[in-house]
Amino acid sequence: MKVARFQVDGEISFGVLDAAENGTGVELVELVSDPIVAGYDTTGRRFRLEQVRLLAPVIPRSKVVCVGKNYADHIEEMKDVTGGETPEEPLLFLKPNTSVIGPGDAIVRPAISERVEHEGELALVIGALAKDVPEEDALKYVFGFTCANDVSARDLQIKDGQWTRGKGFDTFCPLGPVIETDPDLANARITTRVNGETRQDGTTGQLIHSLARIVSYASQAFTLLPGDVILTGTPAGVGPLVSGDVVEVEIEGIGILRNPVRDAGE
Amino acid sequence: MKVARFQVDGEISFGVLDAAENGTGVELVELVSDPIVAGYDTTGRRFRLEQVRLLAPVIPRSKVVCVGKNYADHIEEMKDVTGGETPEEPLLFLKPNTSVIGPGDAIVRPAISERVEHEGELALVIGALAKDVPEEDALKYVFGFTCANDVSARDLQIKDGQWTRGKGFDTFCPLGPVIETDPDLANARITTRVNGETRQDGTTGQLIHSLARIVSYASQAFTLLPGDVILTGTPAGVGPLVSGDVVEVEIEGIGILRNPVRDAGE
Repeated sequence: MKVARFQVDGEISFGVLDAAENGTGVELVELVSDPIVAGYDTTGRRFRLEQVRLLAPVIPRSKVVCVGKNYADHIEEMKDVTGGETPEEPLLFLKPNTSVIGPGDAIVRPAISERVEHEGELALVIGALAKDVPEEDALKYVFGFTCANDVSARDLQIKDGQWTRGKGFDTFCPLGPVIETDPDLANARITTRVNGETRQDGTTGQLIHSLARIVSYASQAFTLLPGDVILTGTPAGVGPLVSGDVVEVEIEGIGILRNPVRDAGE
Repeated sequence: MKVARFQVDGEISFGVLDAAENGTGVELVELVSDPIVAGYDTTGRRFRLEQVRLLAPVIPRSKVVCVGKNYADHIEEMKDVTGGETPEEPLLFLKPNTSVIGPGDAIVRPAISERVEHEGELALVIGALAKDVPEEDALKYVFGFTCANDVSARDLQIKDGQWTRGKGFDTFCPLGPVIETDPDLANARITTRVNGETRQDGTTGQLIHSLARIVSYASQAFTLLPGDVILTGTPAGVGPLVSGDVVEVEIEGIGILRNPVRDAGE
């Protein structure tokens, strides 16, 4: 099932995607509330996808947890920046919820950075409170999966040493377009394109630390709350974004997260 | 004015401290709602301080921003861990809101850390949305000030390099006991005691980056939201906490934040 959050006539709703009743295109079946906490009761209203503005499918009330260095080829390309070693355990950092934007929203390059880069990633959305959960149960706490872009001001990330500021600017966490509750992620392709040109091309089968391990591990540090988001790391091919670019993160079985890029003040 | 958040008869309220009407002790004048967003309308109810359980005076909906390396003597004592250089700009990192606890709540040492340390700090609470605010206006966006303990699993902080996990465990951000909206912070004493023995003893006059600079700088990275909290750094004297300890952070003009320490599973 594909869950979306959307705006229509100034009103924000949740919905699930469905084949249009007239047989052509896609519609959103409106839900009474956020399905993470309230299930799938419907209002009876349906909207055609082109009628609505899709929003980030979730705004975490607590945290966006990110995993660094989780694809071998990306560790290799970043060895001059972050060292070439593969961490034995997932390396965690946080992005603030103020960095979250939705599909179509602009990634804004702050004036104080000279190098803003894309990092296409698979994100998972927590569905239930999780604390110290064992790996074998961890995926039960996941509501679903979406596309994410761990946008990074690489120069500031390097300058600070701590990655928080360089990765935490407003607009630096695009999420969407939908949450797929049951994708096949054994070996799903994850691709990042800039202006239509493929820059990153990996599969979820290449993750060093598995999804279950990441959830279990993060839950040993933090209580994970419903709506928390975990970004699972990026494959090789990260690179700069400039004003006017359009960046797309596509994950097989989930969808395409597309965001334009502009400079602050534009 | 001193603002508190408290629980009485299972109900959570905000209040301001006032001299007791009978002339002895302190009472809480109950407010209709959170004064950060709703001002100071009162319900007409008053409670004696010893009747209530004080809670963290704020739970950030978005973020706890922390500043590292902001006292020269602490930079010196930590030089083997974090390098001895003084950052030209405030060094920012985040703690998740799931790490926040209130006065009297236990700091829980996770089983996976062998060295949990105290870091007594002055914290400021944001009162209004702040983005790219200049230093000269920055303090207008501050609602008030409280005591904080930037509890840190030093071994994991060092192991990870990124400080997020080591400083982000549940219970690792005690806040309170109250928010003072108008303290004199030119040179307020900030003391941390363990079992009554002074371990950290500094003043807010020793801050390398001023409060106004910190708010201005953080607002260039993140949109600061009402209720966001910023921890401003710790003076020298950080050290280990073990089960059974009681740690107190006292800031002149604000109050004493007291928390017991226990091991996970106890």
